[in-house]
Amino acid sequence: MSKTGLKVFAPATVANVAVGYDILGFAIDQPGDEIIIKHGKEPGIKITKITGAKQKLPYDVSSNCAGYAAQKVLDHLGEPDRPFEIELYKKMGLGTGMGSSAASAVAGAMAVNEMMGNPLTKRQLLPFAVAGEEIADGAYHADNVAPSLLGGVTLIRDNATLDVHKIHVPKGIYITMIHPQIEILTKDSRAVLSDQVTLQQTIAQTGNIAGFVLGMFNSNFDLIKRSLTDHIIEPQRAQLIPQFYAMKEEALSLGALGFSISGAGPSMFAFCSDSLAAENIMNAAYRIYNEAKIECSSFVTKINERGALRL
Amino acid sequence: MSKTGLKVFAPATVANVAVGYDILGFAIDQPGDEIIIKHGKEPGIKITKITGAKQKLPYDVSSNCAGYAAQKVLDHLGEPDRPFEIELYKKMGLGTGMGSSAASAVAGAMAVNEMMGNPLTKRQLLPFAVAGEEIADGAYHADNVAPSLLGGVTLIRDNATLDVHKIHVPKGIYITMIHPQIEILTKDSRAVLSDQVTLQQTIAQTGNIAGFVLGMFNSNFDLIKRSLTDHIIEPQRAQLIPQFYAMKEEALSLGALGFSISGAGPSMFAFCSDSLAAENIMNAAYRIYNEAKIECSSFVTKINERGALRL
Repeated sequence: MSKTGLKVFAPATVANVAVGYDILGFAIDQPGDEIIIKHGKEPGIKITKITGAKQKLPYDVSSNCAGYAAQKVLDHLGEPDRPFEIELYKKMGLGTGMGSSAASAVAGAMAVNEMMGNPLTKRQLLPFAVAGEEIADGAYHADNVAPSLLGGVTLIRDNATLDVHKIHVPKGIYITMIHPQIEILTKDSRAVLSDQVTLQQTIAQTGNIAGFVLGMFNSNFDLIKRSLTDHIIEPQRAQLIPQFYAMKEEALSLGALGFSISGAGPSMFAFCSDSLAAENIMNAAYRIYNEAKIECSSFVTKINERGALRL
Repeated sequence: MSKTGLKVFAPATVANVAVGYDILGFAIDQPGDEIIIKHGKEPGIKITKITGAKQKLPYDVSSNCAGYAAQKVLDHLGEPDRPFEIELYKKMGLGTGMGSSAASAVAGAMAVNEMMGNPLTKRQLLPFAVAGEEIADGAYHADNVAPSLLGGVTLIRDNATLDVHKIHVPKGIYITMIHPQIEILTKDSRAVLSDQVTLQQTIAQTGNIAGFVLGMFNSNFDLIKRSLTDHIIEPQRAQLIPQFYAMKEEALSLGALGFSISGAGPSMFAFCSDSLAAENIMNAAYRIYNEAKIECSSFVTKINERGALRL
């Protein structure tokens, strides 16, 4: 157990990844939420500081992702009243589609576990972090939480049982993140989705997710490229994101293996096999959104293989 | 080129494999169709003999899977009038769900290619064999043809472009095939399927196909077992097969990793991690169908890694 305090980092994530709605996600190197945790004076978790959030985030532990996840870990360890103070440094906005709530929840669970001397493995922390994100999102699903915690590209075969597996990441993958400065709430983004899919769409999507997994395993970039087409979710959500198809067309013409919506949007990601394509796509994003007079941030990053960690 | 004649073998196959409707299939060691091919006297392909078919199969090359595929290969090679005589030895019935038409089409394409001195690779024969099967089935899809030709477990990411890939097969997999002696035509079996699927079913199915591919790669039998559940097709088709659920329950309780319908049925397959479970399931099949007074054949086989070959 740490005698004074410590700092943890939990990375942003891209969920869905075009072909794995609710079952696929990956972590990126930056940004990521940070938590500083110290011993406290009053029983249980107390949130003493939140910075970097555009929206007002709750300090109440029972409705804050990080606080809730942290408290759940304490409860599980049979030490619900152990006094800890948490400072939450948000590095990404809510509603960006980069797994903001998940990163906070993961950081909260990690922080307490580190302070307690790591009684739990990362894998064992997963349900508590998922419960933390559920506070914000209303859904018990791990497609952001699992990659933020464990790193890499993760398959969540089944969310209810947290049947989570890491997928091999080929060398040389670069990611361009593009974030037009509009806000889409996950619940709004879910509301546009039909609960019906055609059998043909399902056949195409199962072929593509299988092709993606196989392509990743074999470092077969051509197969990854052919596989990264979303027949189901993207066509329904693209309408919520200005310039989506212009951006996608440009990204693919610049060599992206795939381009789609990050999580519930509005962020988008380009999946690239080299840094040049990734940088060209970043530049194209600034040009396209500048022309459309929409504020935008874009950056090139890599897949984060380590996941959450103590800094 | 062979001066006299030769014999080829194309194995039976299991398509769909629970979680890969239209996109997944595997070949089994036995049974398989055989073709003897010889030089003929009249221009083009001539079918001179068909044995083993319960139903009357056409001798007309344009409507026989084997003949059509064979002729397509000749056409492609620019030698449409090269005279060949084909004898087709059927080892499985039409409508069994074991890829009977596909095996014949593959054998036809292979036979001509072998006689011509192997100008084409197996991969290059694929479209001609698929075209041959289409004669019988009415659909251009490779989930039986690809594994019969290439062997192993094959993913057909996309049928239209024949984007076909082999999936690693862990050591120790045994298959029990169970064939109650009723006939289901593929077109009837397709007719019971709704063209709508729920989004939740699709999420579950994409999770499972990805889990299956990952489990096969990592020889993770537990993951394969959790993944081999069909949320979409099996519940709709099971009604066509007497005793399906009794058989499935027994197979799973005897240790099968998965149990589902082979192709369009009525054959069923159990996917097992050892031969004992596979044999016990075979014995259970005889017991269950004997009690139900339905004739049944069942056998234990392995996944055929070689695919079609010259004998």
